[in-house]
Amino acid sequence: MAQLDDLLEELVTANRILASQGIVDSFGHVTVRHPDNPKRYFMSRGRAPERVEIGDIMEFTLEGDPVDARGRKPYLERFIHGAAYEMRPDVMAVVHNHSPGVIPFGVTGKKMRPIMHMCATIGHEVPIWDQHKKFGDTNLLVESMAAGRDLAKTLGKGRTALMRGHGCIVVGPYLRATIYTSVYLELNAKLQMQAEAMGKVRFLTKGETEKVAATTTPANVNRAWENWCRKADRPYKE
Amino acid sequence: MAQLDDLLEELVTANRILASQGIVDSFGHVTVRHPDNPKRYFMSRGRAPERVEIGDIMEFTLEGDPVDARGRKPYLERFIHGAAYEMRPDVMAVVHNHSPGVIPFGVTGKKMRPIMHMCATIGHEVPIWDQHKKFGDTNLLVESMAAGRDLAKTLGKGRTALMRGHGCIVVGPYLRATIYTSVYLELNAKLQMQAEAMGKVRFLTKGETEKVAATTTPANVNRAWENWCRKADRPYKE
Amino acid sequence: MAQLDDLLEELVTANRILASQGIVDSFGHVTVRHPDNPKRYFMSRGRAPERVEIGDIMEFTLEGDPVDARGRKPYLERFIHGAAYEMRPDVMAVVHNHSPGVIPFGVTGKKMRPIMHMCATIGHEVPIWDQHKKFGDTNLLVESMAAGRDLAKTLGKGRTALMRGHGCIVVGPYLRATIYTSVYLELNAKLQMQAEAMGKVRFLTKGETEKVAATTTPANVNRAWENWCRKADRPYKE
Amino acid sequence: MAQLDDLLEELVTANRILASQGIVDSFGHVTVRHPDNPKRYFMSRGRAPERVEIGDIMEFTLEGDPVDARGRKPYLERFIHGAAYEMRPDVMAVVHNHSPGVIPFGVTGKKMRPIMHMCATIGHEVPIWDQHKKFGDTNLLVESMAAGRDLAKTLGKGRTALMRGHGCIVVGPYLRATIYTSVYLELNAKLQMQAEAMGKVRFLTKGETEKVAATTTPANVNRAWENWCRKADRPYKE
Repeated sequence: MAQLDDLLEELVTANRILASQGIVDSFGHVTVRHPDNPKRYFMSRGRAPERVEIGDIMEFTLEGDPVDARGRKPYLERFIHGAAYEMRPDVMAVVHNHSPGVIPFGVTGKKMRPIMHMCATIGHEVPIWDQHKKFGDTNLLVESMAAGRDLAKTLGKGRTALMRGHGCIVVGPYLRATIYTSVYLELNAKLQMQAEAMGKVRFLTKGETEKVAATTTPANVNRAWENWCRKADRPYKE
Repeated sequence: MAQLDDLLEELVTANRILASQGIVDSFGHVTVRHPDNPKRYFMSRGRAPERVEIGDIMEFTLEGDPVDARGRKPYLERFIHGAAYEMRPDVMAVVHNHSPGVIPFGVTGKKMRPIMHMCATIGHEVPIWDQHKKFGDTNLLVESMAAGRDLAKTLGKGRTALMRGHGCIVVGPYLRATIYTSVYLELNAKLQMQAEAMGKVRFLTKGETEKVAATTTPANVNRAWENWCRKADRPYKE
Repeated sequence: MAQLDDLLEELVTANRILASQGIVDSFGHVTVRHPDNPKRYFMSRGRAPERVEIGDIMEFTLEGDPVDARGRKPYLERFIHGAAYEMRPDVMAVVHNHSPGVIPFGVTGKKMRPIMHMCATIGHEVPIWDQHKKFGDTNLLVESMAAGRDLAKTLGKGRTALMRGHGCIVVGPYLRATIYTSVYLELNAKLQMQAEAMGKVRFLTKGETEKVAATTTPANVNRAWENWCRKADRPYKE
Repeated sequence: MAQLDDLLEELVTANRILASQGIVDSFGHVTVRHPDNPKRYFMSRGRAPERVEIGDIMEFTLEGDPVDARGRKPYLERFIHGAAYEMRPDVMAVVHNHSPGVIPFGVTGKKMRPIMHMCATIGHEVPIWDQHKKFGDTNLLVESMAAGRDLAKTLGKGRTALMRGHGCIVVGPYLRATIYTSVYLELNAKLQMQAEAMGKVRFLTKGETEKVAATTTPANVNRAWENWCRKADRPYKE
């Protein structure tokens, strides 16, 4: 129980870090799978991530039904998360954001690839999902499990996928690693835009990408996590 | 009366948020129509938005005459606001700013279009007004109702219009929504510039634009508003 | 005497504002002509502008000799200022900075021109001075009256001139207006770079530039000055 | 002994300044050679530079063996530093970072050259090291003396070298000068990218580069250092 409390506090911290690092503005969300019940996940009520407090955290079924809403209004797009957990048992945390750098890639179809070692966990090539292909003119929100599952299919076995005219999804094996990948996906976008304007880019090879990803340990992630906690004015727990 | 007081405090908050979000520097202004008298609007005296206090708020006729100036000096360009209220009974708030991202579009004639769902309320295509066409060499300020009405004509039924070599006008059905559109117009500009440099851009379709705009509710706007209030060190009222 | 004290305090404020607004980093300087003795000017000892205090202000002859050094070490490049005051009796304040946006223009020879009304005081076209033309390989610093006078010749009757591979000079009829032009020169640079990348730019016409400059009054400048004082944590005096 | 204490405190300050100036995020490191024993250097344990405290400073042999670890875990890439000290007796401090601006140059092969006088200490042309050439697919980290020595060979007699898909190394004759060059290498990158997009760039000539570098004195560096100390909330010692 104490461990679950810690995880929920960490989820609050994750929200604050995403805001503090400029990965979300007032929109976007992060979830973590229930450690004892793979059919459930935790997520804040609908609120700007920078404002999220422990009392905002709600439990959901994978289909997106609140377990104990107590009048709290959930995010409309929670199906992004549930569908990813459903399809990918290895995924323990999910971020959805509108991180500014990824938008130009999503709308031009330019493929993102890792430009530096810090960004290797985004994967060798980031797929792009266009809701329009299957669903035609929509409000672009992922408001159903059908849409969430279609996005999860594009994500496949990877860690990241862009959503055209909307943002991206990032998944990971634990919460901190998922925030880490979200931060470095944005950095990759910014740097790749600049590099593409200068000439032919030599990206990480597939072999390099895999070797870096394999040596990105919790110790690495924690070096950033400690720093991000302080910057977001949150306590750090190793 | 208490409700009017609340609205005027909200107008102060709107000024502070525009500054805090980087939409205005020391110049630009925001107004709100009098809720009980459609022939009047409220606006600060001529002052940097970040410095505006409740005692700075003045009442104006649509023609721009102060109702009770008490020595306070108004903005020269208040006619931008009055002319918009005059032509558009549906408009309840107006922002004029020099938001940096919109300038390159205004001076190159490149049309802004919504690049992501958050930006749909800017409208399917943003028209550009060039004061020079009708008025020749001027100081580019909108210092008369004639100039204000000419700008309002370019605005038409939309929410936004660029002003070449100057900035833009943003209108809306209530104050918070108008600030929201102002913030995301700037984001759209920044992202569209980056995307145009990378390749052919797939903008939101007309259908998508309309569907997103139709589902941008006060609840959505308030999620941002709460966050922006805290960042601008102003109290939040739901 | 009290008036001179006020002016020197304002010079401290000007230093702090240049730093706070990102126009200088740890280098660059601002001076003001002695109001009662046109053959003298005031300038801080060699120190980062953000750190300047009232005790750092020194008095210089136009040739750059300190009147009462008391062990304080002056800036090496004070000749930029003295030469401008010497050639231009109308100039009452001078800024020299390495404002980042102007560098790409100086080294490519691309001419800066006013892109929006706020930037009209930079002049219709900004000349570029290349020390190499007359002096060959140097350390690029303006360390003599000879170099200072050569730069002043390029400045001519204008308000601004770029210095290739170095920065710029900005002059004005009073201190606050000179800071104002320095801030908007940087903004113009940033926006012009973005606009040039998007298409053919319609700059302010010569007539527009003159009309805006003619209507940029101390009241306009003070609207920004009040705001900048607060941001730089300095008292504001009307 | 007091002098050594001062140097170690300065190393803490150097870490904080690199973070405060945006040259490192949560990764990257800075070292200083032992003033009394050229076969040793000092470096923090593996930690985000912004968080480094005096108790984190460890002593290493040039081969990267900790002299007195007391359970503290070192950075994996300390061999970057040791190999540079080994090959270059003139080098007294080393920085390794992932400064964002240098990445696009490293992956496109575009050569960095000094664009303004403040950046002359980066050298007339910055070489690029690609670990892949000699070592094939790796995780891109410099985890051995062999890799460190290969990088040092590319650095040669210069002050800076880029590392493709990774970052850069900066060396110098004393700690403060090395931080100074690191800060202005990043500025050069940013400005060179912008300038290259605008036209043919006139860089500093070889003669200019040498003359500026020769007149960049400790007094110059200290003007920035004082300012950076205050911004990083660290005491300044002349």
